Amino acid sequence: MERPLFISVIGENDPSPRLAALAEAVGVEIAAAGAVLVCGGLGGAMEAACRGARSRGGVTIGILPGLRHADANPHVMFPIPTGLGHARNLLVARSAHAVIAVGGKYGTLSEIAFAKIDGTPVIGLDTWDLRRPGQEESPVQNARDPKEAVAMALAAARKRQGH
Amino acid sequence: MERPLFISVIGENDPSPRLAALAEAVGVEIAAAGAVLVCGGLGGAMEAACRGARSRGGVTIGILPGLRHADANPHVMFPIPTGLGHARNLLVARSAHAVIAVGGKYGTLSEIAFAKIDGTPVIGLDTWDLRRPGQEESPVQNARDPKEAVAMALAAARKRQGH
Amino acid sequence: MERPLFISVIGENDPSPRLAALAEAVGVEIAAAGAVLVCGGLGGAMEAACRGARSRGGVTIGILPGLRHADANPHVMFPIPTGLGHARNLLVARSAHAVIAVGGKYGTLSEIAFAKIDGTPVIGLDTWDLRRPGQEESPVQNARDPKEAVAMALAAARKRQGH
Amino acid sequence: MERPLFISVIGENDPSPRLAALAEAVGVEIAAAGAVLVCGGLGGAMEAACRGARSRGGVTIGILPGLRHADANPHVMFPIPTGLGHARNLLVARSAHAVIAVGGKYGTLSEIAFAKIDGTPVIGLDTWDLRRPGQEESPVQNARDPKEAVAMALAAARKRQGH
Repeated sequence: MERPLFISVIGENDPSPRLAALAEAVGVEIAAAGAVLVCGGLGGAMEAACRGARSRGGVTIGILPGLRHADANPHVMFPIPTGLGHARNLLVARSAHAVIAVGGKYGTLSEIAFAKIDGTPVIGLDTWDLRRPGQEESPVQNARDPKEAVAMALAAARKRQGH
Repeated sequence: MERPLFISVIGENDPSPRLAALAEAVGVEIAAAGAVLVCGGLGGAMEAACRGARSRGGVTIGILPGLRHADANPHVMFPIPTGLGHARNLLVARSAHAVIAVGGKYGTLSEIAFAKIDGTPVIGLDTWDLRRPGQEESPVQNARDPKEAVAMALAAARKRQGH
Repeated sequence: MERPLFISVIGENDPSPRLAALAEAVGVEIAAAGAVLVCGGLGGAMEAACRGARSRGGVTIGILPGLRHADANPHVMFPIPTGLGHARNLLVARSAHAVIAVGGKYGTLSEIAFAKIDGTPVIGLDTWDLRRPGQEESPVQNARDPKEAVAMALAAARKRQGH
Repeated sequence: MERPLFISVIGENDPSPRLAALAEAVGVEIAAAGAVLVCGGLGGAMEAACRGARSRGGVTIGILPGLRHADANPHVMFPIPTGLGHARNLLVARSAHAVIAVGGKYGTLSEIAFAKIDGTPVIGLDTWDLRRPGQEESPVQNARDPKEAVAMALAAARKRQGH
């Protein structure tokens, strides 16, 4: 079985309307490219992204903090309850070939960090700007819009698969 | 979206031919019932169950100990890499509405234990016989064959959902 | 630094007076032997074991399901909050060179299973009797009393360290 | 039992001599204040911090990625093996009342993120500079030297305990 690429979309529970629209458009583009969308399964940016992906018939997976499938937003096809609370963030990062961060608070920051620990590419839309003393470039590649973000994520994922 | 029931199949990496055939038949029955099959994603009983489910067009999810999608057996549609090693066993137990144990060693025992901690029904085919001092009945409901095991798992899952 | 052996004591939140007395005596013997006691940090058998160990000046570590040090029973010297809920059970099993199970329900069963996955010896006092089809001996070595349980745990731990 | 405060020190496996000296001085100050030092248990900044704390007779706990007590650096009194790999980072963050980050790469970033998710104060010495669009202040309070870092960590931990 040739499997599709998996792209995680991470972001806030309570995004601004602008960030929610960005997340939804990211979901649309992921589905249009035939990739699987992974997220944390709850509301806000996660729900917006799933709604976008489902509007194009895409597959959506939600890795949940709690124990109940029913906690997933209605656009999640396959809920994965974990009972691990915020610790499930690292599973959201690890399930994907590339990660797209849309806005985001500390949960998003933890997912970016775990993606980078594993060498997974992270594309950003209005997300954290991360600088370390002595470091030349940001660990997050910023995109200008959702279409570019998904194109960058897929290109980075394919390049990494090729290794 | 009305979601299907999720049934986890747990068992050995290196099963006897008889146990592998049981696991494959369990997979066939899960798919025939329209349920989603969850497993640990690797070989042995996990691969046999996925092969059975895919032969009927079922959906298969594999929650992997490692970090690579490519570690999944070829009959897993949706791999979930965790990087958690054996700790991922608890996620296999938690992702399902009911669990079917086919044979099994200590990994299977850990999954049975975590399912029971959460109140998830466990159906057994030639699996652990668990007795505590003073306890009247086994925590695992034994089935006579794969068809009965899946019927019992679905009935227990539906009963629990109704609560 | 030569470090002491670590022994985990696992058991019920709500033990009978007889099981609580066994757990306390196990704690006394662990401290008398100069070993460190690890447990799940809460009440019941965990608290009884810690009380016993502290009565002899032993060191006690409690690996907690929640996020607050203050959740630990008063006889835990070093609380380790995890926020992982029941998933912390596997950390209790993994932190020790040997495990002593006193009575126990499903949480204890999960700890026994994870200890055995890792090859860690498990000594039992009135705990689960585990049988698999075709298996000759129980994975748990039963002791007659707390003194014997601790002696068996230390001997098994030392033997394993010697490998 | 009145328990001491727990302070986690996080940082790089392979720090510059300057960062290693900062981490060691942080360990000295933690022990001098009677607090318990928690870290990831391995080398680099972790070992330097433990060495500093032990030079003043402090207590050191190392939460390890692997399964063996013997993996801990020689200045760890109480190793906690987890077998969780990098996922143990979140336990290092969660075990403490406050966190001090000395330098640091992506592992340190994940620990900062998890500390902030839980509301745990983070004090920085030459560590990540974290900015989000629209955010006014950094989530990390920068200290000028190890003495100030420990004083800030203890003050923030006490303030939080008082809540």
